[in-house]
Amino acid sequence: MLRVAYQGEPGAYSESAAIEYFGVEVETVPCESFDRVFEAVQMDQVERGILPIENSLAGSIHRNYDLLMRHTLWIVGEHDLHVEHCLISHPGVRLSDIRKVISHPQALAQCENHLRAMGDIEIAAEHDTAGSVRLLRAQGDLSVAAIASRRAAEVYGMAVLAENFEDEPANLTRFLIVACTPVKPKRRAKTSIVFTLNNQPGSLFKALSVFALREIDLTKIESRPLVGQPWEYLFYVDFCGSTEEGKVRRALDHLGEYAPMLRVLGSYPRKEAS
Amino acid sequence: MLRVAYQGEPGAYSESAAIEYFGVEVETVPCESFDRVFEAVQMDQVERGILPIENSLAGSIHRNYDLLMRHTLWIVGEHDLHVEHCLISHPGVRLSDIRKVISHPQALAQCENHLRAMGDIEIAAEHDTAGSVRLLRAQGDLSVAAIASRRAAEVYGMAVLAENFEDEPANLTRFLIVACTPVKPKRRAKTSIVFTLNNQPGSLFKALSVFALREIDLTKIESRPLVGQPWEYLFYVDFCGSTEEGKVRRALDHLGEYAPMLRVLGSYPRKEAS
Repeated sequence: MLRVAYQGEPGAYSESAAIEYFGVEVETVPCESFDRVFEAVQMDQVERGILPIENSLAGSIHRNYDLLMRHTLWIVGEHDLHVEHCLISHPGVRLSDIRKVISHPQALAQCENHLRAMGDIEIAAEHDTAGSVRLLRAQGDLSVAAIASRRAAEVYGMAVLAENFEDEPANLTRFLIVACTPVKPKRRAKTSIVFTLNNQPGSLFKALSVFALREIDLTKIESRPLVGQPWEYLFYVDFCGSTEEGKVRRALDHLGEYAPMLRVLGSYPRKEAS
Repeated sequence: MLRVAYQGEPGAYSESAAIEYFGVEVETVPCESFDRVFEAVQMDQVERGILPIENSLAGSIHRNYDLLMRHTLWIVGEHDLHVEHCLISHPGVRLSDIRKVISHPQALAQCENHLRAMGDIEIAAEHDTAGSVRLLRAQGDLSVAAIASRRAAEVYGMAVLAENFEDEPANLTRFLIVACTPVKPKRRAKTSIVFTLNNQPGSLFKALSVFALREIDLTKIESRPLVGQPWEYLFYVDFCGSTEEGKVRRALDHLGEYAPMLRVLGSYPRKEAS
């Protein structure tokens, strides 16, 4: 059975993403931290890792960009998870009984308007969404609710008081699948790279020209600080195409003329448009 | 006297940045949150706000990018603060007496190696660096130390046990100064803008061409999610030059041909190279 490491506790959104992507027969392996997910893959304890890289409301998860650079794993797939927050309580509790809501700070922020509509209640931050449901059950306080996925409610035998509790319905998280060896998709692929540039006028324009001149479509650009070189950057770029295509290989050769450091993080099957 | 709002408590790095930039005669006004700094300026309670926008190790402070977009203030200046962490204790305490160290999580992370060298001690996260020194004094426990600025030690009458406690010496934070009305520097200026692009192949390349073709030097590009439009982005770009220059005005007119939304956040005097 394929083993997939994810960060969080059973019922976490990352676990839901793994099940959506790999199907129900996957064995999901919870990890304490993103670092541990990378390690579990690198040390062959699991075949795959799944990592959130970007949320359509909150932006990039920079820690995972930095960890991709620090490790030598390959990106072998991507998946968009529609994040649907539920308000979760002990069974039999009514909404009007709730005096306190707990969850991860980002989930609380994404439900701000719905929480405000509940009137004078206490809001408290916990380490993660599924973990707050586990805590809810362990503490047994009927006046407390947690915000997490429907799956987290099921895992811990709790009830869903309200669904679609998020303020903005277009709430997607993009996950990357990582492995020790690359895949080589021939078409409908996406490629992720990271590179540095000399700090010269027009350097980023030249770097992007290698894609534009070959009509290669960029889907994402992210800059991260280059440690030890204040105000210089690592650029992470995603584009449509596979390193199996001559056009892409020539673009990367061309980019190598400008980029002191260039690394391909992987070519992988592109998700369907969401 | 010029009043400047900053986020944090007396002794915060943001307050040090305000004093370095405006001089000692400035009146610094502490605020609970970045949001409150924007509000204090907008409501004329202070003349200026000072906000961290980027750290050379940790990257951009995205909350402040988002708040720049949400408010209508102008960027009127920038300043680089060299972040030098001190290990701070009650006076008369020796390093070997310390059993616990408290600070903001980012400061703790930046001192990871030095903390590890202290052996088996407890590490605990607090809301901010200066606040952890205030707590240190209030609690009166001689076995606890805090990580914060030398100024925070002075403000609360505590002692500096060790200075340059950070692992990586090139630790700079770039601050922006914001105000209700713009300044119009004629030369040695920088300009910050934010824009959107249609999701088309080559659109970012075309956008950057308006600068490259006029030899206008980009210093920073940052992408942030466009809420409600998954995987579309707001681009924040800083470049050398002032909107008082014809070349810059023509570049921005040209960018307007590609960008459905384009806003100038301000032209302001450029800091000296650091």
